[in-house]
Amino acid sequence: MASDLSNASIGIFDSGFGGLTVMNAIMRALPNENIVYFGDTARLPYGNKSMATVLRYAKENADFLTGLGIKVLVVACNTACAAGLDELQTSCPIPVVGVIPSAIEEMLPHAKEGRVAILGTRSTIQSGVYQRQIKNHLPQAVIHAIPCPLFVPLVEEGYIEHPLTVAAIQEYLTPLKVKEIECLILGCTHYPLIAHMIQRELGQHITMIDPAKGCAEKIRQVLDEKKWHNFQQKRAYYEFYVTDDPEKFRLLGKTFLHYPIEHVHPKLY
Amino acid sequence: MASDLSNASIGIFDSGFGGLTVMNAIMRALPNENIVYFGDTARLPYGNKSMATVLRYAKENADFLTGLGIKVLVVACNTACAAGLDELQTSCPIPVVGVIPSAIEEMLPHAKEGRVAILGTRSTIQSGVYQRQIKNHLPQAVIHAIPCPLFVPLVEEGYIEHPLTVAAIQEYLTPLKVKEIECLILGCTHYPLIAHMIQRELGQHITMIDPAKGCAEKIRQVLDEKKWHNFQQKRAYYEFYVTDDPEKFRLLGKTFLHYPIEHVHPKLY
Repeated sequence: MASDLSNASIGIFDSGFGGLTVMNAIMRALPNENIVYFGDTARLPYGNKSMATVLRYAKENADFLTGLGIKVLVVACNTACAAGLDELQTSCPIPVVGVIPSAIEEMLPHAKEGRVAILGTRSTIQSGVYQRQIKNHLPQAVIHAIPCPLFVPLVEEGYIEHPLTVAAIQEYLTPLKVKEIECLILGCTHYPLIAHMIQRELGQHITMIDPAKGCAEKIRQVLDEKKWHNFQQKRAYYEFYVTDDPEKFRLLGKTFLHYPIEHVHPKLY
Repeated sequence: MASDLSNASIGIFDSGFGGLTVMNAIMRALPNENIVYFGDTARLPYGNKSMATVLRYAKENADFLTGLGIKVLVVACNTACAAGLDELQTSCPIPVVGVIPSAIEEMLPHAKEGRVAILGTRSTIQSGVYQRQIKNHLPQAVIHAIPCPLFVPLVEEGYIEHPLTVAAIQEYLTPLKVKEIECLILGCTHYPLIAHMIQRELGQHITMIDPAKGCAEKIRQVLDEKKWHNFQQKRAYYEFYVTDDPEKFRLLGKTFLHYPIEHVHPKLY
Protein backbone atom coordinates (compact mmCIF):
# COMPACT_ATOMS: atom_id res chain seq x y z
CA MET A 1 0.00 0.00 0.00
CA ALA A 2 1.38 3.40 -0.96
CA SER A 3 2.05 5.67 1.99
CA ASP A 4 -0.13 8.72 2.55
CA LEU A 5 1.93 11.74 1.53
CA SER A 6 -0.91 14.30 1.81
CA ASN A 7 0.98 16.40 4.32
CA ALA A 8 4.25 16.40 2.38
CA SER A 9 5.31 19.40 0.29
CA ILE A 10 5.47 19.78 -3.46
CA GLY A 11 9.13 20.19 -4.48
CA ILE A 12 10.16 22.43 -7.37
CA PHE A 13 13.60 23.02 -8.80
CA ASP A 14 14.99 25.44 -11.34
CA SER A 15 18.39 26.84 -12.28
CA GLY A 16 17.55 29.98 -10.33
CA PHE A 17 14.69 32.41 -10.54
CA GLY A 18 12.62 31.47 -13.59
CA GLY A 19 10.88 28.54 -11.91
CA LEU A 20 9.22 31.01 -9.55
CA THR A 21 6.78 31.84 -12.37
CA VAL A 22 5.77 28.15 -12.26
CA MET A 23 5.58 28.21 -8.46
CA ASN A 24 3.21 31.18 -8.70
CA ALA A 25 0.85 29.17 -10.93
CA ILE A 26 0.96 26.23 -8.49
CA MET A 27 0.27 28.51 -5.50
CA ARG A 28 -2.83 29.87 -7.26
CA ALA A 29 -4.13 26.51 -8.46
CA LEU A 30 -3.39 24.59 -5.24
CA PRO A 31 -3.44 27.14 -2.42
CA ASN A 32 -3.54 24.48 0.27
CA GLU A 33 -0.25 22.87 -0.71
CA ASN A 34 3.07 23.51 1.01
CA ILE A 35 5.89 24.09 -1.46
CA VAL A 36 9.64 23.81 -1.20
CA TYR A 37 11.51 25.58 -4.01
CA PHE A 38 15.13 24.92 -4.90
CA GLY A 39 17.04 27.47 -7.03
CA ASP A 40 20.56 26.57 -8.15
CA THR A 41 21.61 30.22 -8.15
CA ALA A 42 25.33 29.49 -7.72
CA ARG A 43 25.45 27.58 -11.01
CA LEU A 44 22.88 29.45 -13.11
CA PRO A 45 22.13 29.77 -15.94
CA TYR A 46 21.56 26.23 -17.28
CA GLY A 47 20.52 27.38 -20.75
CA ASN A 48 24.03 27.78 -22.17
CA LYS A 49 25.47 24.60 -20.67
CA SER A 50 25.79 21.11 -22.11
CA MET A 51 23.03 18.55 -21.68
CA ALA A 52 25.42 16.29 -19.73
CA THR A 53 26.21 19.00 -17.18
CA VAL A 54 22.57 20.08 -16.84
CA LEU A 55 21.49 16.45 -16.33
CA ARG A 56 24.11 16.05 -13.60
CA TYR A 57 22.83 19.20 -11.87
CA ALA A 58 19.20 18.12 -12.30
CA LYS A 59 19.90 14.77 -10.62
CA GLU A 60 21.66 16.47 -7.69
CA ASN A 61 18.73 18.85 -7.28
CA ALA A 62 16.20 16.01 -7.49
CA ASP A 63 18.14 14.00 -4.89
CA PHE A 64 18.23 16.96 -2.54
CA LEU A 65 14.49 17.61 -2.81
CA THR A 66 13.40 13.98 -2.59
CA GLY A 67 15.63 13.73 0.49
CA LEU A 68 13.42 16.36 2.10
CA GLY A 69 10.43 14.04 1.77
CA ILE A 70 8.41 15.79 -0.96
CA LYS A 71 5.43 14.12 -2.60
CA VAL A 72 5.75 15.42 -6.18
CA LEU A 73 8.84 16.77 -7.97
CA VAL A 74 8.34 19.62 -10.45
CA VAL A 75 11.10 20.26 -12.97
CA ALA A 76 10.36 23.95 -13.54
CA CYS A 77 13.24 24.55 -15.94
CA ASN A 78 12.85 23.82 -19.63
CA THR A 79 16.57 23.18 -20.11
CA ALA A 80 16.60 20.65 -17.25
CA CYS A 81 13.50 18.96 -18.72
CA ALA A 82 15.20 18.77 -22.10
CA ALA A 83 18.29 17.29 -20.48
CA GLY A 84 16.62 14.57 -18.49
CA LEU A 85 12.94 14.61 -17.55
CA ASP A 86 12.64 10.98 -18.74
CA GLU A 87 15.60 9.94 -16.67
CA LEU A 88 14.28 11.70 -13.55
CA GLN A 89 10.87 10.10 -14.07
CA THR A 90 12.53 6.69 -14.14
CA SER A 91 14.91 7.21 -11.23
CA CYS A 92 12.75 9.18 -8.77
CA PRO A 93 10.63 7.30 -6.26
CA ILE A 94 7.83 9.92 -6.55
CA PRO A 95 5.85 11.40 -9.48
CA VAL A 96 7.86 13.89 -11.56
CA VAL A 97 6.11 16.66 -13.52
CA GLY A 98 7.94 18.78 -16.09
CA VAL A 99 7.21 21.99 -17.96
CA ILE A 100 7.86 20.60 -21.47
CA PRO A 101 5.03 18.00 -21.55
CA SER A 102 2.73 20.62 -19.98
CA ALA A 103 3.61 23.09 -22.71
CA ILE A 104 2.91 20.55 -25.45
CA GLU A 105 -0.44 19.59 -23.96
CA GLU A 106 -1.47 23.22 -23.63
CA MET A 107 -0.35 23.95 -27.17
CA LEU A 108 -2.28 21.22 -28.98
CA PRO A 109 -5.77 22.84 -29.06
CA HIS A 110 -4.21 26.05 -30.40
CA ALA A 111 -2.20 24.47 -33.21
CA LYS A 112 -5.00 23.33 -35.51
CA GLU A 113 -2.89 23.80 -38.61
CA GLY A 114 0.36 22.84 -36.90
CA ARG A 115 2.13 26.18 -37.37
CA VAL A 116 4.05 26.55 -34.13
CA ALA A 117 6.96 28.57 -32.79
CA ILE A 118 9.09 27.65 -29.77
CA LEU A 119 11.36 30.12 -28.03
CA GLY A 120 13.96 28.75 -25.64
CA THR A 121 17.52 28.82 -24.41
CA ARG A 122 20.22 27.69 -26.79
CA SER A 123 20.54 24.34 -25.00
CA THR A 124 16.80 23.66 -25.00
CA ILE A 125 16.43 24.44 -28.70
CA GLN A 126 19.57 22.52 -29.67
CA SER A 127 18.39 19.45 -27.77
CA GLY A 128 15.47 19.14 -30.20
CA VAL A 129 13.24 17.77 -27.43
CA TYR A 130 10.38 20.22 -28.04
CA GLN A 131 10.56 19.68 -31.78
CA ARG A 132 10.45 15.87 -31.43
CA GLN A 133 7.57 15.92 -28.97
CA ILE A 134 5.51 18.25 -31.16
CA LYS A 135 6.15 16.01 -34.17
CA ASN A 136 4.97 13.01 -32.14
CA HIS A 137 1.58 14.68 -31.76
CA LEU A 138 1.48 16.63 -35.01
CA PRO A 139 3.58 14.85 -37.63
CA GLN A 140 2.76 17.55 -40.22
CA ALA A 141 3.67 20.46 -37.95
CA VAL A 142 5.77 23.32 -39.29
CA ILE A 143 7.96 24.25 -36.34
CA HIS A 144 10.03 27.42 -35.92
CA ALA A 145 12.42 26.84 -33.02
CA ILE A 146 14.32 29.97 -32.04
CA PRO A 147 17.05 30.23 -29.41
CA CYS A 148 16.77 33.56 -27.55
CA PRO A 149 19.87 33.49 -25.33
CA LEU A 150 19.74 37.15 -24.30
CA PHE A 151 16.21 37.03 -22.86
CA VAL A 152 17.40 35.42 -19.60
CA PRO A 153 20.07 38.03 -18.76
CA LEU A 154 17.73 40.84 -19.84
CA VAL A 155 14.93 39.60 -17.57
CA GLU A 156 17.35 38.94 -14.69
CA GLU A 157 18.58 42.53 -15.05
CA GLY A 158 14.99 43.64 -14.66
CA TYR A 159 14.93 45.13 -18.16
CA ILE A 160 11.18 44.70 -18.63
CA GLU A 161 9.71 47.40 -20.92
CA HIS A 162 13.27 48.44 -21.71
CA PRO A 163 14.52 49.49 -25.15
CA LEU A 164 17.26 46.82 -25.07
CA THR A 165 14.66 44.11 -24.55
CA VAL A 166 12.53 45.53 -27.37
CA ALA A 167 15.63 45.43 -29.58
CA ALA A 168 16.40 41.82 -28.59
CA ILE A 169 12.81 40.75 -29.25
CA GLN A 170 12.97 42.35 -32.71
CA GLU A 171 16.35 40.75 -33.37
CA TYR A 172 15.09 37.25 -32.59
CA LEU A 173 11.46 37.42 -33.69
CA THR A 174 11.25 39.65 -36.77
CA PRO A 175 11.72 36.60 -39.06
CA LEU A 176 8.67 35.00 -37.37
CA LYS A 177 6.35 37.81 -38.45
CA VAL A 178 5.97 36.47 -41.99
CA LYS A 179 5.51 32.84 -40.92
CA GLU A 180 1.80 32.91 -40.00
CA ILE A 181 2.24 30.93 -36.80
CA GLU A 182 -0.83 30.11 -34.71
CA CYS A 183 0.82 29.78 -31.34
CA LEU A 184 4.13 30.34 -29.63
CA ILE A 185 5.54 28.33 -26.74
CA LEU A 186 7.39 30.33 -24.07
CA GLY A 187 9.95 27.55 -23.66
CA CYS A 188 11.88 29.13 -20.79
CA THR A 189 10.39 30.12 -17.44
CA HIS A 190 11.89 33.62 -17.69
CA TYR A 191 9.95 34.48 -20.81
CA PRO A 192 6.48 34.95 -19.26
CA LEU A 193 7.86 38.16 -17.74
CA ILE A 194 8.21 39.63 -21.24
CA ALA A 195 5.30 37.76 -22.84
CA HIS A 196 3.30 40.98 -23.23
CA MET A 197 6.22 42.55 -25.13
CA ILE A 198 6.54 39.51 -27.40
CA GLN A 199 2.79 39.57 -28.00
CA ARG A 200 2.95 43.28 -28.88
CA GLU A 201 5.69 42.58 -31.43
CA LEU A 202 3.99 39.57 -33.06
CA GLY A 203 0.35 40.58 -32.78
CA GLN A 204 -2.66 39.64 -30.68
CA HIS A 205 -3.78 36.86 -33.04
CA ILE A 206 -1.02 34.54 -31.83
CA THR A 207 -1.72 32.38 -28.76
CA MET A 208 1.07 32.48 -26.21
CA ILE A 209 1.65 29.20 -24.38
CA ASP A 210 3.07 29.47 -20.87
CA PRO A 211 3.52 25.94 -19.48
CA ALA A 212 3.10 27.08 -15.86
CA LYS A 213 -0.69 26.76 -15.72
CA GLY A 214 -0.73 23.38 -17.43
CA CYS A 215 1.98 22.24 -15.06
CA ALA A 216 -0.14 23.19 -12.05
CA GLU A 217 -3.09 21.28 -13.57
CA LYS A 218 -0.92 18.23 -14.09
CA ILE A 219 0.08 18.31 -10.42
CA ARG A 220 -3.58 18.54 -9.45
CA GLN A 221 -4.27 15.40 -11.51
CA VAL A 222 -1.44 13.56 -9.75
CA LEU A 223 -2.75 14.58 -6.32
CA ASP A 224 -6.31 13.57 -7.34
CA GLU A 225 -5.14 10.19 -8.50
CA LYS A 226 -2.95 9.48 -5.47
CA LYS A 227 -5.42 11.07 -3.02
CA TRP A 228 -2.52 13.19 -1.78
CA HIS A 229 -4.24 16.59 -1.54
CA ASN A 230 -3.35 18.51 1.59
CA PHE A 231 -6.44 19.39 3.60
CA GLN A 232 -4.59 21.33 6.28
CA GLN A 233 -6.44 24.15 8.04
CA LYS A 234 -3.40 26.38 8.45
CA ARG A 235 -1.90 28.66 5.78
CA ALA A 236 0.32 26.90 3.25
CA TYR A 237 4.04 27.10 4.03
CA TYR A 238 6.56 28.16 1.38
CA GLU A 239 10.23 27.48 1.80
CA PHE A 240 13.22 28.14 -0.43
CA TYR A 241 16.71 26.69 -0.77
CA VAL A 242 19.34 28.39 -2.92
CA THR A 243 22.97 27.65 -3.69
CA ASP A 244 24.06 31.32 -3.79
CA ASP A 245 23.21 34.27 -1.52
CA PRO A 246 19.74 33.84 0.10
CA GLU A 247 19.27 37.60 0.52
CA LYS A 248 19.81 38.33 -3.17
CA PHE A 249 17.33 35.58 -4.02
CA ARG A 250 14.78 37.05 -1.65
CA LEU A 251 15.06 40.49 -3.27
CA LEU A 252 15.19 39.51 -6.96
CA GLY A 253 12.82 36.56 -6.56
CA LYS A 254 9.83 38.77 -5.68
CA THR A 255 9.70 40.03 -9.27
CA PHE A 256 9.24 36.48 -10.53
CA LEU A 257 6.95 35.15 -7.81
CA HIS A 258 4.78 38.29 -7.46
CA TYR A 259 4.68 37.44 -3.79
CA PRO A 260 6.98 38.27 -0.85
CA ILE A 261 9.67 35.65 -0.24
CA GLU A 262 10.57 34.46 3.27
CA HIS A 263 12.31 31.38 4.68
CA VAL A 264 15.25 31.23 2.26
CA HIS A 265 17.99 28.82 3.31
CA PRO A 266 21.45 28.33 1.82
CA LYS A 267 22.25 24.91 0.39
CA LEU A 268 25.88 24.48 -0.68
CA TYR A 269 26.97 21.64 -2.92
CA MET B 1 66.54 26.83 -1.01
CA ALA B 2 63.54 27.31 -3.30
CA SER B 3 63.12 24.57 -5.86
CA ASP B 4 63.73 25.29 -9.54
CA LEU B 5 60.33 25.52 -11.18
CA SER B 6 61.57 26.75 -14.58
CA ASN B 7 60.04 23.82 -16.42
CA ALA B 8 56.68 24.09 -14.70
CA SER B 9 53.70 25.71 -16.43
CA ILE B 10 52.01 28.99 -15.73
CA GLY B 11 48.47 28.31 -14.46
CA ILE B 12 45.55 30.58 -15.31
CA PHE B 13 41.96 30.36 -14.18
CA ASP B 14 38.81 32.19 -15.14
CA SER B 15 35.06 31.63 -14.88
CA GLY B 16 35.05 30.52 -18.50
CA PHE B 17 36.22 32.17 -21.67
CA GLY B 18 37.22 35.74 -20.81
CA GLY B 19 40.56 34.78 -19.28
CA LEU B 20 41.67 33.62 -22.72
CA THR B 21 42.24 37.29 -23.61
CA VAL B 22 44.77 37.35 -20.74
CA MET B 23 46.29 34.07 -21.88
CA ASN B 24 46.79 35.59 -25.33
CA ALA B 25 48.80 38.46 -23.83
CA ILE B 26 50.92 36.00 -21.81
CA MET B 27 51.57 33.83 -24.89
CA ARG B 28 52.82 36.88 -26.77
CA ALA B 29 54.96 38.29 -23.95
CA LEU B 30 56.40 34.95 -22.81
CA PRO B 31 56.33 32.65 -25.85
CA ASN B 32 58.61 30.10 -24.22
CA GLU B 33 56.28 29.35 -21.32
CA ASN B 34 53.95 26.38 -21.09
CA ILE B 35 50.48 27.36 -19.94
CA VAL B 36 47.63 25.43 -18.37
CA TYR B 37 44.29 27.21 -18.50
CA PHE B 38 41.31 26.36 -16.34
CA GLY B 39 37.83 27.59 -17.34
CA ASP B 40 34.95 26.95 -14.94
CA THR B 41 32.45 26.76 -17.80
CA ALA B 42 29.92 24.64 -15.87
CA ARG B 43 29.44 27.38 -13.27
CA LEU B 44 29.93 30.54 -15.35
CA PRO B 45 29.38 33.43 -15.15
CA TYR B 46 30.90 34.60 -11.85
CA GLY B 47 29.96 38.26 -12.34
CA ASN B 48 26.40 37.97 -11.03
CA LYS B 49 27.20 35.74 -8.06
CA SER B 50 27.97 36.61 -4.45
CA MET B 51 31.53 37.25 -3.30
CA ALA B 52 31.31 34.28 -0.90
CA THR B 53 30.39 31.88 -3.71
CA VAL B 54 32.99 33.27 -6.11
CA LEU B 55 35.69 33.02 -3.43
CA ARG B 56 34.75 29.39 -2.81
CA TYR B 57 35.01 28.66 -6.54
CA ALA B 58 38.30 30.59 -6.81
CA LYS B 59 39.86 28.51 -4.03
CA GLU B 60 38.76 25.26 -5.65
CA ASN B 61 40.21 26.38 -8.97
CA ALA B 62 43.47 27.48 -7.32
CA ASP B 63 43.75 24.14 -5.50
CA PHE B 64 43.21 22.24 -8.72
CA LEU B 65 45.88 24.21 -10.63
CA THR B 66 48.47 24.22 -7.85
CA GLY B 67 47.91 20.45 -7.61
CA LEU B 68 49.13 20.22 -11.21
CA GLY B 69 52.48 21.67 -10.14
CA ILE B 70 52.31 25.13 -11.74
CA LYS B 71 54.89 27.82 -10.90
CA VAL B 72 52.72 30.95 -11.01
CA LEU B 73 48.93 31.25 -10.60
CA VAL B 74 47.15 33.91 -12.67
CA VAL B 75 43.68 34.97 -11.56
CA ALA B 76 42.42 36.10 -14.96
CA CYS B 77 38.92 37.01 -13.79
CA ASN B 78 38.20 40.41 -12.32
CA THR B 79 35.29 39.12 -10.23
CA ALA B 80 37.44 36.35 -8.73
CA CYS B 81 40.19 38.92 -7.99
CA ALA B 82 37.64 41.15 -6.30
CA ALA B 83 36.38 38.22 -4.25
CA GLY B 84 39.69 36.97 -2.98
CA LEU B 85 43.01 37.81 -4.61
CA ASP B 86 44.45 38.71 -1.18
CA GLU B 87 43.27 35.45 0.30
CA LEU B 88 44.70 33.39 -2.58
CA GLN B 89 48.01 35.26 -2.30
CA THR B 90 48.16 34.32 1.38
CA SER B 91 47.07 30.70 1.03
CA CYS B 92 48.84 29.63 -2.17
CA PRO B 93 52.36 28.20 -1.95
CA ILE B 94 53.34 29.92 -5.23
CA PRO B 95 53.19 33.52 -6.52
CA VAL B 96 49.69 34.67 -7.45
CA VAL B 97 49.16 37.42 -10.04
CA GLY B 98 45.77 39.07 -10.57
CA VAL B 99 44.23 41.28 -13.21
CA ILE B 100 43.03 44.02 -10.81
CA PRO B 101 46.46 45.16 -9.52
CA SER B 102 47.76 45.00 -13.11
CA ALA B 103 44.92 47.25 -14.27
CA ILE B 104 45.61 49.80 -11.53
CA GLU B 105 49.32 49.88 -12.32
CA GLU B 106 48.67 50.33 -16.02
CA MET B 107 46.10 53.04 -15.34
CA LEU B 108 48.23 55.30 -13.13
CA PRO B 109 50.30 57.06 -15.83
CA HIS B 110 47.11 57.83 -17.77
CA ALA B 111 45.12 59.31 -14.86
CA LYS B 112 47.06 62.52 -14.29
CA GLU B 113 43.98 64.35 -13.09
CA GLY B 114 42.41 61.31 -11.50
CA ARG B 115 39.30 61.19 -13.70
CA VAL B 116 38.77 57.47 -14.16
CA ALA B 117 36.00 55.13 -15.25
CA ILE B 118 35.79 51.42 -14.44
CA LEU B 119 33.48 49.05 -16.27
CA GLY B 120 32.87 45.64 -14.71
CA THR B 121 30.40 42.97 -13.79
CA ARG B 122 27.83 43.79 -11.15
CA SER B 123 29.72 41.79 -8.51
CA THR B 124 33.08 43.41 -9.30
CA ILE B 125 31.66 46.93 -9.15
CA GLN B 126 29.59 46.24 -6.02
CA SER B 127 32.64 44.84 -4.22
CA GLY B 128 34.25 48.29 -4.38
CA VAL B 129 37.70 46.71 -4.72
CA TYR B 130 38.70 48.71 -7.80
CA GLN B 131 37.41 51.94 -6.26
CA ARG B 132 39.35 51.38 -3.01
CA GLN B 133 42.58 50.46 -4.76
CA ILE B 134 42.41 53.52 -7.03
CA LYS B 135 41.76 55.74 -3.99
CA ASN B 136 44.82 54.21 -2.28
CA HIS B 137 46.97 55.53 -5.13
CA LEU B 138 44.99 58.64 -6.04
CA PRO B 139 43.08 59.89 -2.99
CA GLN B 140 41.59 62.78 -5.02
CA ALA B 141 40.39 60.57 -7.89
CA VAL B 142 36.91 61.04 -9.29
CA ILE B 143 35.80 57.51 -10.11
CA HIS B 144 32.86 56.46 -12.26
CA ALA B 145 32.23 52.76 -11.62
CA ILE B 146 29.66 51.28 -13.98
CA PRO B 147 28.29 47.74 -13.89
CA CYS B 148 27.72 46.47 -17.46
CA PRO B 149 26.06 43.09 -16.84
CA LEU B 150 24.91 42.52 -20.41
CA PHE B 151 28.36 42.81 -21.99
CA VAL B 152 29.33 39.24 -20.98
CA PRO B 153 26.29 37.52 -22.53
CA LEU B 154 26.54 39.74 -25.62
CA VAL B 155 30.21 38.86 -26.14
CA GLU B 156 29.60 35.17 -25.42
CA GLU B 157 26.85 35.22 -28.04
CA GLY B 158 29.44 36.55 -30.49
CA TYR B 159 27.52 39.82 -30.92
CA ILE B 160 30.58 41.88 -31.80
CA GLU B 161 29.72 44.80 -34.14
CA HIS B 162 26.08 43.98 -33.55
CA PRO B 163 23.30 46.57 -33.13
CA LEU B 164 22.30 45.06 -29.75
CA THR B 165 25.83 45.55 -28.44
CA VAL B 166 25.90 49.13 -29.75
CA ALA B 167 22.59 49.71 -27.93
CA ALA B 168 23.94 48.20 -24.68
CA ILE B 169 27.10 50.33 -24.89
CA GLN B 170 24.97 53.44 -25.34
CA GLU B 171 22.70 52.40 -22.48
CA TYR B 172 25.58 51.99 -20.03
CA LEU B 173 28.04 54.62 -21.24
CA THR B 174 26.09 57.63 -22.50
CA PRO B 175 26.21 59.23 -19.00
CA LEU B 176 30.03 58.95 -19.14
CA LYS B 177 30.27 61.17 -22.22
CA VAL B 178 29.88 64.39 -20.23
CA LYS B 179 32.27 63.34 -17.45
CA GLU B 180 35.59 64.23 -19.13
CA ILE B 181 37.28 61.02 -18.05
CA GLU B 182 40.93 60.45 -19.00
CA CYS B 183 40.97 56.70 -18.97
CA LEU B 184 38.67 53.73 -18.72
CA ILE B 185 39.50 50.36 -17.17
CA LEU B 186 38.10 47.32 -18.96
CA GLY B 187 37.41 45.58 -15.66
CA CYS B 188 36.18 42.29 -17.10
CA THR B 189 38.19 40.07 -19.41
CA HIS B 190 35.33 39.87 -21.91
CA TYR B 191 35.36 43.59 -22.57
CA PRO B 192 38.55 43.80 -24.68
CA LEU B 193 36.57 42.07 -27.45
CA ILE B 194 34.32 45.14 -27.69
CA ALA B 195 36.94 47.75 -26.68
CA HIS B 196 36.97 49.24 -30.19
CA MET B 197 33.21 49.74 -30.01
CA ILE B 198 33.44 51.38 -26.58
CA GLN B 199 36.24 53.61 -27.87
CA ARG B 200 34.14 54.58 -30.87
CA GLU B 201 31.28 55.59 -28.58
CA LEU B 202 33.38 57.57 -26.09
CA GLY B 203 36.02 59.04 -28.40
CA GLN B 204 39.66 58.44 -29.23
CA HIS B 205 40.96 60.82 -26.54
CA ILE B 206 40.18 58.32 -23.76
CA THR B 207 42.85 55.75 -22.93
CA MET B 208 41.48 52.23 -22.66
CA ILE B 209 43.15 50.08 -20.00
CA ASP B 210 43.19 46.34 -20.65
CA PRO B 211 44.90 44.63 -17.69
CA ALA B 212 46.08 41.68 -19.81
CA LYS B 213 49.36 43.23 -20.98
CA GLY B 214 50.26 44.50 -17.51
CA CYS B 215 49.44 41.08 -16.14
CA ALA B 216 51.87 39.42 -18.56
CA GLU B 217 54.56 41.96 -17.56
CA LYS B 218 53.97 41.20 -13.89
CA ILE B 219 54.48 37.49 -14.56
CA ARG B 220 57.72 38.30 -16.38
CA GLN B 221 58.92 40.19 -13.29
CA VAL B 222 58.09 37.22 -11.06
CA LEU B 223 59.97 34.83 -13.35
CA ASP B 224 62.94 37.24 -13.50
CA GLU B 225 63.07 37.50 -9.75
CA LYS B 226 62.73 33.74 -9.10
CA LYS B 227 64.91 32.81 -12.10
CA TRP B 228 62.08 30.57 -13.23
CA HIS B 229 62.03 31.40 -16.97
CA ASN B 230 61.62 28.36 -19.17
CA PHE B 231 64.48 28.04 -21.66
CA GLN B 232 63.07 24.96 -23.39
CA GLN B 233 63.98 24.45 -27.05
CA LYS B 234 60.66 22.89 -28.01
CA ARG B 235 57.44 24.74 -28.77
CA ALA B 236 55.48 25.88 -25.74
CA TYR B 237 52.65 23.55 -24.75
CA TYR B 238 49.15 24.86 -24.06
CA GLU B 239 46.64 22.78 -22.21
CA PHE B 240 43.07 23.47 -21.09
CA TYR B 241 40.76 22.10 -18.42
CA VAL B 242 37.07 22.98 -18.39
CA THR B 243 34.15 21.97 -16.18
CA ASP B 244 31.57 21.87 -19.02
CA ASP B 245 31.79 20.46 -22.56
CA PRO B 246 35.40 20.55 -23.89
CA GLU B 247 34.27 20.68 -27.52
CA LYS B 248 32.13 23.77 -26.99
CA PHE B 249 35.07 25.42 -25.25
CA ARG B 250 37.36 24.57 -28.13
CA LEU B 251 35.00 26.16 -30.66
CA LEU B 252 33.97 29.30 -28.77
CA GLY B 253 37.37 29.80 -27.13
CA LYS B 254 39.12 30.50 -30.43
CA THR B 255 37.34 33.87 -30.66
CA PHE B 256 38.84 34.92 -27.33
CA LEU B 257 42.31 33.40 -27.71
CA HIS B 258 42.79 34.32 -31.40
CA TYR B 259 44.59 31.00 -31.66
CA PRO B 260 43.45 27.44 -32.31
CA ILE B 261 42.67 25.50 -29.14
CA GLU B 262 43.77 21.87 -28.68
CA HIS B 263 44.26 19.60 -25.67
CA VAL B 264 41.03 20.42 -23.82
CA HIS B 265 40.27 18.08 -20.92
CA PRO B 266 37.13 17.80 -18.81
CA LYS B 267 37.47 18.46 -15.09
CA LEU B 268 34.32 17.73 -13.09
CA TYR B 269 33.86 19.04 -9.59
